[in-house]
Amino acid sequence: MQSFEVDKKDLSRVKAALEGDDAGLAEVLQDYHASEIAILFERLPSEAHERIINILPTEIASEVISEMDEESHPEELLINLDPEKRSEIVSELDYDDATDLIAQLEEHEQQDLLESMDEEDASSIRALLSYGENTAGGLMNSSLIKVNIRQDKKGALDDIIRQSEEMEEFYTIYVVEDDDTLQGVVSIKNIIKAHADAKISSLLKADPVYVNADVDQEEVARLISQYNLTTIPVVDDHMKLLGRITVDDIIDVMEEESTEDILKFSGVSEDEELSGSWQDAVKSRLPWLVLNLATGFLAAGVVRHFASVQVAIPTIVAYMTIVSGMGGNAATQALAVTVRRISLSDLTDSQAYRTVLKEFSVGLINGAVNGLIVGAFAFVYDGSPMMGVVLFLAMTGNLFIAGLTGATIPLVLKRVGIDPAVASSIIITTFTDCAGFFLPLWFASKFLL
Amino acid sequence: MQSFEVDKKDLSRVKAALEGDDAGLAEVLQDYHASEIAILFERLPSEAHERIINILPTEIASEVISEMDEESHPEELLINLDPEKRSEIVSELDYDDATDLIAQLEEHEQQDLLESMDEEDASSIRALLSYGENTAGGLMNSSLIKVNIRQDKKGALDDIIRQSEEMEEFYTIYVVEDDDTLQGVVSIKNIIKAHADAKISSLLKADPVYVNADVDQEEVARLISQYNLTTIPVVDDHMKLLGRITVDDIIDVMEEESTEDILKFSGVSEDEELSGSWQDAVKSRLPWLVLNLATGFLAAGVVRHFASVQVAIPTIVAYMTIVSGMGGNAATQALAVTVRRISLSDLTDSQAYRTVLKEFSVGLINGAVNGLIVGAFAFVYDGSPMMGVVLFLAMTGNLFIAGLTGATIPLVLKRVGIDPAVASSIIITTFTDCAGFFLPLWFASKFLL
Repeated sequence: MQSFEVDKKDLSRVKAALEGDDAGLAEVLQDYHASEIAILFERLPSEAHERIINILPTEIASEVISEMDEESHPEELLINLDPEKRSEIVSELDYDDATDLIAQLEEHEQQDLLESMDEEDASSIRALLSYGENTAGGLMNSSLIKVNIRQDKKGALDDIIRQSEEMEEFYTIYVVEDDDTLQGVVSIKNIIKAHADAKISSLLKADPVYVNADVDQEEVARLISQYNLTTIPVVDDHMKLLGRITVDDIIDVMEEESTEDILKFSGVSEDEELSGSWQDAVKSRLPWLVLNLATGFLAAGVVRHFASVQVAIPTIVAYMTIVSGMGGNAATQALAVTVRRISLSDLTDSQAYRTVLKEFSVGLINGAVNGLIVGAFAFVYDGSPMMGVVLFLAMTGNLFIAGLTGATIPLVLKRVGIDPAVASSIIITTFTDCAGFFLPLWFASKFLL
Repeated sequence: MQSFEVDKKDLSRVKAALEGDDAGLAEVLQDYHASEIAILFERLPSEAHERIINILPTEIASEVISEMDEESHPEELLINLDPEKRSEIVSELDYDDATDLIAQLEEHEQQDLLESMDEEDASSIRALLSYGENTAGGLMNSSLIKVNIRQDKKGALDDIIRQSEEMEEFYTIYVVEDDDTLQGVVSIKNIIKAHADAKISSLLKADPVYVNADVDQEEVARLISQYNLTTIPVVDDHMKLLGRITVDDIIDVMEEESTEDILKFSGVSEDEELSGSWQDAVKSRLPWLVLNLATGFLAAGVVRHFASVQVAIPTIVAYMTIVSGMGGNAATQALAVTVRRISLSDLTDSQAYRTVLKEFSVGLINGAVNGLIVGAFAFVYDGSPMMGVVLFLAMTGNLFIAGLTGATIPLVLKRVGIDPAVASSIIITTFTDCAGFFLPLWFASKFLL
């Protein structure tokens, strides 16, 4: 089985069905899983979205909406639906998904929608709306299965089956005190195997891993990954059980975070939507470019300072661009390795020290090898052994600086609380550009003039 | 709760306990979860690893070993253990974890270890060893819970409880035919709720999502993410059930793949261990740098071609470095957004077309704005309106080329089956470097000489 990629056949099949009547369309749609329909939506106009949602059984329709890409704006689709259909769909959604959608709406649209829902659903969603979008509270689902610690086997099993009516799957059964404070977890297997008169208190596994509602989603992802969990309970400051986060939501968080990492690393604002408009892209990238322009002027100042050298020895200019470009490449390598290490786990002082030492050696060696190549080229092509020496020294020096800054800058930024993925590259480029121009020009002024 | 970060207190506590006797050490270790001990291991010498593993109860010891970072080489620890202890630990490991460890050993060590194990475990692991490390087969665990489609409630429940003795958690119960072909899944909830004489065939959910054993792990991650699964069954070409992959293994795959993406994007071999030695780092990065050096010579050739311009107008050299540097920055932005989009989902022709069109506009606008700034600077600082015009044209042109190649090259590479994350940046740097030197020098030769 392959994960579903919309191919032309699926798309034209659905498009053809859209030309026909509802019955035919409904029949074609039966062949697709809700998450597949959500993917097909990305290629269909929004009128088609509305028609399809109206045709699908409510259960499937709500799943399609919850699976739709954020960038396809499912909340707009929702708000355009007939109010009755909309209420049906929202009450079928998991609370966390419903909350994410409603959070995207305007204030008055939110109120309208919540008022049209039944009171229990509305108050659960209102509670979830109060948490920050990127926190454990914002990710959690308040529907879960819990049993009281004083229950016996029969009572607990009945409770579990009753509570599970409204859930497709449950992974963990939480054990709580009368005041809803989290006491532990219990597995359905152990309940089934237990004696008829066994108490939950004797089956419980205490000390579960949990998070507070205000913990950042990245931290939740780390916990789930580190302890190999499928679900993690969310509690308030008094250990009262508020909800649970399931691993499928964390997978979405991980994809999001890793997109952000790559974008930040490349000087793109982390908020830029990958398929956003050109206006958004300009807004996200232009400030970064202008900032880079400022550092470009700085490096250009170094070049201007040596104007006499470049007039006297014109060939140094071409070589200087090579030395500076190679410094940028080597620094990006050192930076990527260091930033990624930092983002996977904090480094101790001694690990940080060893990292810098390593990049120090790598820079020297890679610099010397590339310096030999470019130096030998200058010797042969320009017939100037001294130019060879100048370039060897400049290249070794610049790649050494590249390695050193590539490792040191992100570590220092992290210590002082600045996101190394964002700020490192511009600082390092400034170093390698300036040094990449200064070193060949300065050595040339010493040895060749 | 915070995810566990080794702090100095934990480390010095364990180090102090290592000075004392085994009983004291064992007591201290009781306060830590297996995955926390695995993290502590990264800061302890390997003699300490061995001693701690020998002290820990086998169950915990095997969990620690399976949680150890690949870069801490758990397989070496394993091979140094007393043979009896080693067998105990390996038979306690999940088959997939045991296989991953054993795969790291030398051929003769593998044979020795497998021969010391009981026949059933050894043959399961031998089967798993035959799959590629990065395929569904290499990821899967052959222990799972399955029931025959013709069973009734009572028989199925007994079967499930018997099979679950050896597993900590189970998520999905697979339903198979007599010949072990996968028929569907069934939930424990539905079995419990069913009438006493209900047959599994009436409770089963058919058409589950599955993968073939030779499917790439990245594809498995996509399926799990797309269909929100906690586990996915793995089958052979005849639909025979071979094993299952759980979401916790997929989370590790996702972290790995996202590290690889960032490294490849920055010209570091995807195999470089983040905390590897400097020798490995040189081996991984030098080839890429030498390749870049070659393209650097190409761009330097452009500069040499215009030697007469740079002697006549020395200031153009400083500006030329700005134009080329800015091209590189803008191209990296366009490239990051496009590469990340491609890696999250394939683009249709029309999406690809729109992406190129968007980067085309973004490049022109960002180019014009930066061109205006640098042009105005030249006008004011150098008092040369014509130099201003030259730089405006060159900057706009180069950022336009940057946007266009940043979007087009990865899309084209993807179509012809080359990994865009690896090859794009070098091609694009060549374009923006060459154009970044050519445009200002050429315009200057036309307008200023």
